[in-house]
This record gives sequence, C-alpha cells and structure tokens, in this order.
Amino acid sequence: MKPKRFRPDWTEQPPKPGTIRSIVKYGDPHSYKHPSDAWVKMMLREFNMSKADFSVKRNEGHEPVVLDRPPAMEPAHVEALARIVGEENVATDDYSRVRYATGMTSEEIWELRRGVIREVADVVVHPRDKKDVREIVRYCDAERIPITVFSAGSSVNFGCRPYKGGVTLVMSTHMNKLLEINELNHTARVQPGMFGPAYEEALNNAPEGFGCKRRYTCGHFPQSFEYSTVGGWVVTLGSGQASTYYGDACDIVFSQEYVTPVGTIRTLDYPATATGPKVNDIFKGSEGTFGILVELTMKIYRYMPENRRYFSFMFPTWEAAVDASREVMQRESGMPAIYRISDPEETDRGLKLYGVPGFVDAGLARLGFKPGRRSLCLGNVEGDGEYTRLVARTIKRVAREHGALPLSGYPARMWEHTRYTEPYMREDLNDYGIFLDTLETSVTWDNLHRVHQGVRAFIKSRPGTICMTHASHFYPQGTNLYFILMARMGADEYVEFQNGIIDRVLEHGGTPSHHHGIGRLLAPWMEPHLGREQMEVLRALKRHFDPHGIMNPGGQLGLDEIPPRR
Amino acid sequence: MKPKRFRPDWTEQPPKPGTIRSIVKYGDPHSYKHPSDAWVKMMLREFNMSKADFSVKRNEGHEPVVLDRPPAMEPAHVEALARIVGEENVATDDYSRVRYATGMTSEEIWELRRGVIREVADVVVHPRDKKDVREIVRYCDAERIPITVFSAGSSVNFGCRPYKGGVTLVMSTHMNKLLEINELNHTARVQPGMFGPAYEEALNNAPEGFGCKRRYTCGHFPQSFEYSTVGGWVVTLGSGQASTYYGDACDIVFSQEYVTPVGTIRTLDYPATATGPKVNDIFKGSEGTFGILVELTMKIYRYMPENRRYFSFMFPTWEAAVDASREVMQRESGMPAIYRISDPEETDRGLKLYGVPGFVDAGLARLGFKPGRRSLCLGNVEGDGEYTRLVARTIKRVAREHGALPLSGYPARMWEHTRYTEPYMREDLNDYGIFLDTLETSVTWDNLHRVHQGVRAFIKSRPGTICMTHASHFYPQGTNLYFILMARMGADEYVEFQNGIIDRVLEHGGTPSHHHGIGRLLAPWMEPHLGREQMEVLRALKRHFDPHGIMNPGGQLGLDEIPPRR
Repeated sequence: MKPKRFRPDWTEQPPKPGTIRSIVKYGDPHSYKHPSDAWVKMMLREFNMSKADFSVKRNEGHEPVVLDRPPAMEPAHVEALARIVGEENVATDDYSRVRYATGMTSEEIWELRRGVIREVADVVVHPRDKKDVREIVRYCDAERIPITVFSAGSSVNFGCRPYKGGVTLVMSTHMNKLLEINELNHTARVQPGMFGPAYEEALNNAPEGFGCKRRYTCGHFPQSFEYSTVGGWVVTLGSGQASTYYGDACDIVFSQEYVTPVGTIRTLDYPATATGPKVNDIFKGSEGTFGILVELTMKIYRYMPENRRYFSFMFPTWEAAVDASREVMQRESGMPAIYRISDPEETDRGLKLYGVPGFVDAGLARLGFKPGRRSLCLGNVEGDGEYTRLVARTIKRVAREHGALPLSGYPARMWEHTRYTEPYMREDLNDYGIFLDTLETSVTWDNLHRVHQGVRAFIKSRPGTICMTHASHFYPQGTNLYFILMARMGADEYVEFQNGIIDRVLEHGGTPSHHHGIGRLLAPWMEPHLGREQMEVLRALKRHFDPHGIMNPGGQLGLDEIPPRR
Repeated sequence: MKPKRFRPDWTEQPPKPGTIRSIVKYGDPHSYKHPSDAWVKMMLREFNMSKADFSVKRNEGHEPVVLDRPPAMEPAHVEALARIVGEENVATDDYSRVRYATGMTSEEIWELRRGVIREVADVVVHPRDKKDVREIVRYCDAERIPITVFSAGSSVNFGCRPYKGGVTLVMSTHMNKLLEINELNHTARVQPGMFGPAYEEALNNAPEGFGCKRRYTCGHFPQSFEYSTVGGWVVTLGSGQASTYYGDACDIVFSQEYVTPVGTIRTLDYPATATGPKVNDIFKGSEGTFGILVELTMKIYRYMPENRRYFSFMFPTWEAAVDASREVMQRESGMPAIYRISDPEETDRGLKLYGVPGFVDAGLARLGFKPGRRSLCLGNVEGDGEYTRLVARTIKRVAREHGALPLSGYPARMWEHTRYTEPYMREDLNDYGIFLDTLETSVTWDNLHRVHQGVRAFIKSRPGTICMTHASHFYPQGTNLYFILMARMGADEYVEFQNGIIDRVLEHGGTPSHHHGIGRLLAPWMEPHLGREQMEVLRALKRHFDPHGIMNPGGQLGLDEIPPRR
C-alpha cells in the first residue's frame, strides 16, 4: 500500500489587510505556490526534519502592523508636502510607513515576521506626476529632508529602507502609465512606476491601445516581472530572463529623465552620439542616490510569439554544458533569448522536484547522464521566423557536439510556466523555519569554474544546506552564476552565513551582484570590490547631484555611511 | 578625335622630412590617391574652374617647419621629464612640437600650409609604459603643467592641439603592443597607442603570434583605420564601418585603465555587473580631459572572412532606401556588418566618379532609377556561414519589397577597396584651393529626413557646393548622417560656412557628432545641445579627476574655457 501522502498545512488564505503578513507575502495576495510533495520529501530528508516540524507555523505575521513611533517630522513639513500632492496622497499611518519601508530581503522579511520594525519614513507621499516630484525634491532639499524611493518593493537588499526617515516617495501609485509608442523609432515613453505586466500588455496591444501597426514586447522579464517596475529595472541595473538576446536593462533604456536636487536632467534621444561621456549611462544603476527617475524612453521590439522556438538538452557534465554555451555565445550565429544551464545539484533536484519519473532518471543515467554530474540546459529563441529556426538549429548542433541529449522543447515550456512563481514558495517555507534565498554574481568565462566551485564549497561546508546553481544571462565574454540556498536555520546564523558567501564570491573574483543591485546589504563590499578610486568617482557624482545628502541616504551603494548589519 | 585627357600635375613625391607638407599629408608618405579624370571634370564644371586654375599649386608646405618660439617651460621641468622617460624620449625641437600639435582638422591643415602655427606644446614626451605615464602625470599635476595627448593624430576637431602649452604625450611611439589574447573570454589586452592595422593583423594571426586556436578580428574599422589607434577609438567614441554588427567603440571596449591626477583607475573585467553606475562607461569619450588611457581590454570576434557576403542595391528613392534600412534593422533577423545608403546626390556623383558607363546609367534611368532620386545601398554580412547566408538573403528580400534593383556584390567590393583611401585626396584638392571636408550627426528614424533636408538645404544654398550624404552606422532606433562637402573657397569663408552647418544640424535636432568626437571645434555646441545640467555633470567629473585642470585643457569637450575660433 502506498504510504499516505504528507502535506503540511500550507497557508491558503490571503493575508488580512493591515497585517504584517500582507506586507511580507510576495506578489498577488490571492496567489500561492506551495512546495510540492517532492519538495516536502526533500526537506524532510535533507534538513533532518520530522513531520512534527511541519506541524507548527511560527511568526506568521497575522497581527496588525503597530509601529508605535510617531513621525519624527514636524507637522509643518507634512502639511507642506500635502499642499504639493494633495492630502489624499500623503500618509503617516503606521501601516503605510511600514509597508513602504519594506522590500523582499530575506532578513527584513524575517525580522518583520518577528515584529521587529527597522527604520521607516516619517511620511509616505504618492506623487502624481513629474511636477510633484520636482516640488517635493526642491522642498526636501531646502529643508534637508531625506527621500527614499519605493516603486514595486521587490528589492532584495534593503533598497527601499528609509534609513534616515524623512519621506518615502511611492512611484507606482500614479506614475505608472505608458505615455507614447514611437513606432518609427521602436521606442516607448513610459513612467517609472509602471509594473512589468501592464507595460508588456500595453505593448502587446499597441494596435488596439495606441493605433500602432504592429505589436511590441519590452524584452525584459526578470523573475520579479509581476512585481517590478520599469523604473526599478533601470535604476538597479536589472536583467531579464531573455537578456541573452534583448540585453540587460542598461541596454534597453534609450533615454531618461531624473529630478535631482540640482535640477532636472533629461537625456536626449539618439541611437549613438560622440559628445563626451554619456550622462544617460551615469544614471543607470544609481539606485535613487542621485535623483528620482520620473520618465524613461525604452527600446521596444517586435512581438512575434509565433516564432518562438524552445529547446532543452541534458549534458553529461556541467563542464560540457559550460563549453557548449560558450561556443553558442561566441560563434557569431545569433543569440538565443532565454538560455539557462543548471549545475549538477540543481539538475538532479530539478528532475525530482518537477516529478520526472524514476525510470526516466535511471534511463538517463544508463545513457551516461549520471546524477551528480549531468547538467540541464533549456531556453528559447525569439525574433523573425527564419532567424529563430537558424539559431535553434545551431544550438542543437553545438549541444550534440558537446555530448548532449536533446530533450525536446517540453522542459523549457514547463520551466516557463513557473518562471515568475518561485518566489511565492518563500512564505510557506518561512512558516516552518526554512530559509530560501538567492545570491548572484557575474563571471568571465575563464573564472566561471573557480567562482562556482569556491562559493559552492563554502555553502556546502554547512551541513544540511541545499545549493542549486545556474547560469542564466549569457554574453560572449561570460555569464552570471545564480546560487539558490535552502536551509533550516535562524536569522542570526543566516546573516553570518550570507556574509561568508559574499566574502567567498569576491575572494574568487565574482562581482557582488550581476542584476540584483547593491542596496544597503551589499554596500560593504562595494569598495573592496571596485577599489577606492572608483568609489571616489561615484561619491563625486553623489556630491554633485545631491550636495545635502538627502537622496536615499544611509549606505545605499556604499556612497555614505553604511548602517551596521544586525 | 577624342579630346586630350586633362590631368593636373598631382604631387607624387613623398614630402621631405622636416617640412610642413610632411605634417599635413595624410597617411603613408609614399601613398597617394589622386582625383580621377571624372573628379577633375566634375570640379571644372561645378566649381566653374578652368584648366588654368589647375596650373598653379598654392601653399604646398614644402618649406621646413620653423617655429621660432622657444619652449615657455623652465628647463628644470624638461630635465625632470627626461629623468622619468629618458633623454631620448623627450623632444623640444621645432618640428616635434608642431608635428605633435597637429591633427587633421581642415582648418589646421590650411593654416599650417599658409605657415600659421597655432598653439604647440613646450615639450613632447614619448612615455614607454604605464609607469612613465603615472610619474609624468604626478609631476605635471604637482607643477601645474598642462598635458595633451597625441596618438595617431587623425583628429578632425583640434583634439590634439596643446592649447595651453605644456607637455604633449605621444602614446603611439612605445605604448603600441598587443599584450595578451584571452581566448576563453574573447578579449584582448592592448596598449592604447597601437594602430588599427597592427592590431587587426595581430588578431588575425593569433595562432602564430599568441598560440591561439582561432583567428580573431577587432570589429572596428573606421575610415581612419590605418591612422588611428585603439585608445583613440575609445576616448573619442569612434565608430567603425562595420559598427552595425560589431557595435561602436563604446560597445567593444570591455575594461580600461586610466592614469588621472587623483590616481590610477582600472575598471574590472565583467560581462555585466549591477554595482552602481559604471566607471568604465564614464571614461568612454572623455577625450583626454579626465586622464590618460594606458591600457584597454577589448572584446574580439572570430575572424571568418570566408563567410563574408556582399550586397548592393539601387533603390528608386532615398525614402525607399531609408524605409528598407529601417525594416532591416528592426526585423529581429540579424544585423549586417557594413551597411550604407547614399542620398541621390552621392549616388549620382558616385556612379560618375566610379566610372559607371553612360549606357548603364541610362539603363538604370529607364528602369525607373532616375538621377536626382535614386539611392545606392551597399554592405556586407559577417559571422558564421549560415548566419551570413540568412542575413544576406533577408536583406535582399526586404530591398526587393521596397522596389530595389539588386546590383550583385560587386559595387560593395569595389567600395571596400577605397574604404581607407578617400582622405588621401585632400592634399591634391587643397593644392588647388579646393576644400573637402566632412560633418556627421546622429538621428533617430523619425527625424532623419528633417535633419537631412534642413542641413542639405543650407549647404546647397551656397552656389558651387557639392554635398554628398550617406548613412553608414545603423541601429534599431536610427542611424547617422555623414555629409561630405566640397567647394572652392577660402579658409575664412569656410569657417563661417562650417559654423552655419553645425548650427543647422542642431537646429533640426541632430547631435553635434555621431563618431568624430567633439574636441575643441564642436565644443561651443556642447552646452546648447546637452543643456547646462548635463554639462555640469561632466564638469563635476572633470573637477574630480583633474582638480588643477591640467588634462587636455583649453576647451576640449567644452569643459573649460573654449578658445575663440579664428
């Protein structure tokens, strides 16, 4: 008789408005993605847990948010801000102040669940337009009031934390419209607070909504797509899952407009220009420390989903997968859109977690694709029909030359269904004291294995720690490495562990972030990584744009005093 | 009886060493490219010239360079510099001081031919390595001695002029080596003073010279290729003829090392990184005003000339050529390497100048490709064999859909033979008082015709002025416009005329430069174009890197006082 299926009591109720849970829950309040039975089995085994460990949830955060900390700001300032944006766009209630101070950093989620509330803004302001932002920045600069920006709130590095109090500007409440599609130039003028899905939908429906001849796509699909905004992509140097073809956010933005304490800067629309260092580049990745992004012109691309071609392969080894991928990226025969390779641990766990039957697994092993060595590759190609056919064919040939077994497009399509939903699992895991976090870095090809092995060795030296790694953003010169960690541990231990991992990333030659940005969490590694000379350049720019230090102060990007980790 | 062929007495003698001619002559002293008979016929007709006008050459510059201006610098400084680089690498003779103060700007060439010598350095120094540069910069910063950089000297905007005297550093004498090829990363570490052909040859011969498995190409082939250096490409934001595929210089540089008065900055080797605004980007296009570029890591590409495919088409109109080109660049089916379209004036003159027989021309007209309307397109595709076949086929289809007549690859190959030699004609023309100059700008698609028509209208309003225009660097969002001017006029008239053209470029919405850079010539248009706010960002960076204003001072990029035009 088959043993009875064990299913923990996963939470299936939308969080009550006003509760801590409503802040820490990722994404749509009514959507869940629970760990599958295979996940549960894995956790029981790997974390040495019993079913009893899955019987009591802790720190669920069902209690209402209570801050008990009145705004430190003089009421006259709040009134002045209300005069700018209207009473209805200013909030000083506890919930707003906590809600808009919180991103999705593991540590801040865990602290909040335990009732620990760190720094919050004194007042939350929802600007209606650029003019509002200009007046707010002028006022706050004159009065030396700090400004922090909140848009989608999916930062994983304390990027939204109003470390010095003051004002939090919520960009996504009103400034979330697609303003114009320029069909000749293949560009779109958009407000920074527009969420990914709304933006993509408007572009897909350009004929209906904007009278265009064609449909378009934004080309940028990070895992946080549903809870990230166009402005957030650019100010954090984000990267989408299809970046191998479309480029990173920094490649997709065409021009930008920022409101800074020293004035408004709008960069110009040119496909290229030889007029000195490009101010458009200087703002990319500035994470709110130079000014407020109030408008963007983005490159857009023809939307041709009918031409998409999916592929998946099993490579005998990670090394073979890496070599084949390098060949694909360097052979000058067109680039795929999505392209991912998983290391052996991720591959093996993936096969199990996605429910691949045991006999298939055994069959793979017999064919030479052995557990502990094999490596899964999947992706797709986008573009013109003949182009996608050629690139897909080429990738298949290269994969075969490196010993891969073609697995059809099915695994890639299956992966695609889950591409935005993985973060939803975190609440369930956290409810039972399990950490799920990610860390990512960028590497040149010649340093890939050194970083992968060095970081993995450190992570795996802690017993009961799952570490799945993939590379998912490819360039002719290298790729990224994305580490997914899972373990049963307390928050204090995790902070120390995470610090150790980041140390190892740098020690082995990785960059502190490939596309998550720096925020405050990674700020202490900025100077060790970039060196004093480069940091001084960024600080000189900071002094220029923000002479009174009001823009997202408190360690963001390591430009001013970095708050100590607790 | 056929009339006797008229051939002016073109100069065929290499300039004598030490003469003005040896400075103003472009390129190899032993190479010439004389205007063809068709050119001469065109000039006689269009400039209302007689054969007598071609009988006397003027201001040939055969006299030796005499400066008659002793170095203004204290001898102790010269001695100190000699202690750093060695006596043999320091020069204060008249010839060196004039030679290394002179680029290829039309105006400076004409002035020099007339014996007018503008600002020169007090001492010319040839650094041997980075260490020399560091010591020189440290010394000059302490002593407040201006430093100007000379590398290949093909600047067309007074970029090499030591406006404030001091030291000129010649980067191409010693710092001209390819240091390393990283075959895994597809990158090359190279010194800034390496000339294009030497660099490309070393990459092509990577197996022989560096023990590589493959041959590589640099992907960057500006018209000045033979007399430009890798460092010059990057600091001026240059663009090569194959940029539509390989990208502009700013896209090809991977990392850089600069010696600035506040220290040496080496940016790091990563394919992408989300660690704040990128200092690597900030240095691109800084034209010597922030520091001295001492080393670069460049992206390199597989060299596969056997896969190259050439194409040429005649479009019925310029508008059709533009529309077809836009479709090629936006259809997501791969990009060509070289891609050019000529406006009707350039097309018609091109047919004549390249000696296309009259009956062919008449045949074209009968087919609907009429003089004054038709537009020539040519280019090639590079990359993997299947890729080049696909892209060439796609371009052909798009061209046909826009009414084009395929002309085979022959015209493109013919053009390729002359791709670096056009600048050689200037001496011959100047000998007979004829100006040949170029101006270029960048445009988005939606503004292309406005800029083209507006600038052309101004140029053609001057009787007897030839204006040929092409677009030769393509992007999904737009292209460049390259204006070639020819007229018989004096230098003073030309300066005023040129100012008028640049005014018109800006007035119609073009950028002051697509790939020639700014130097001092275009500096007055920087602030009107970018606006005060963007200029203040550049000036803040300038103050940071160069607090005492010694780096290429005197108006470069418009960052400090701009010298008046004379």
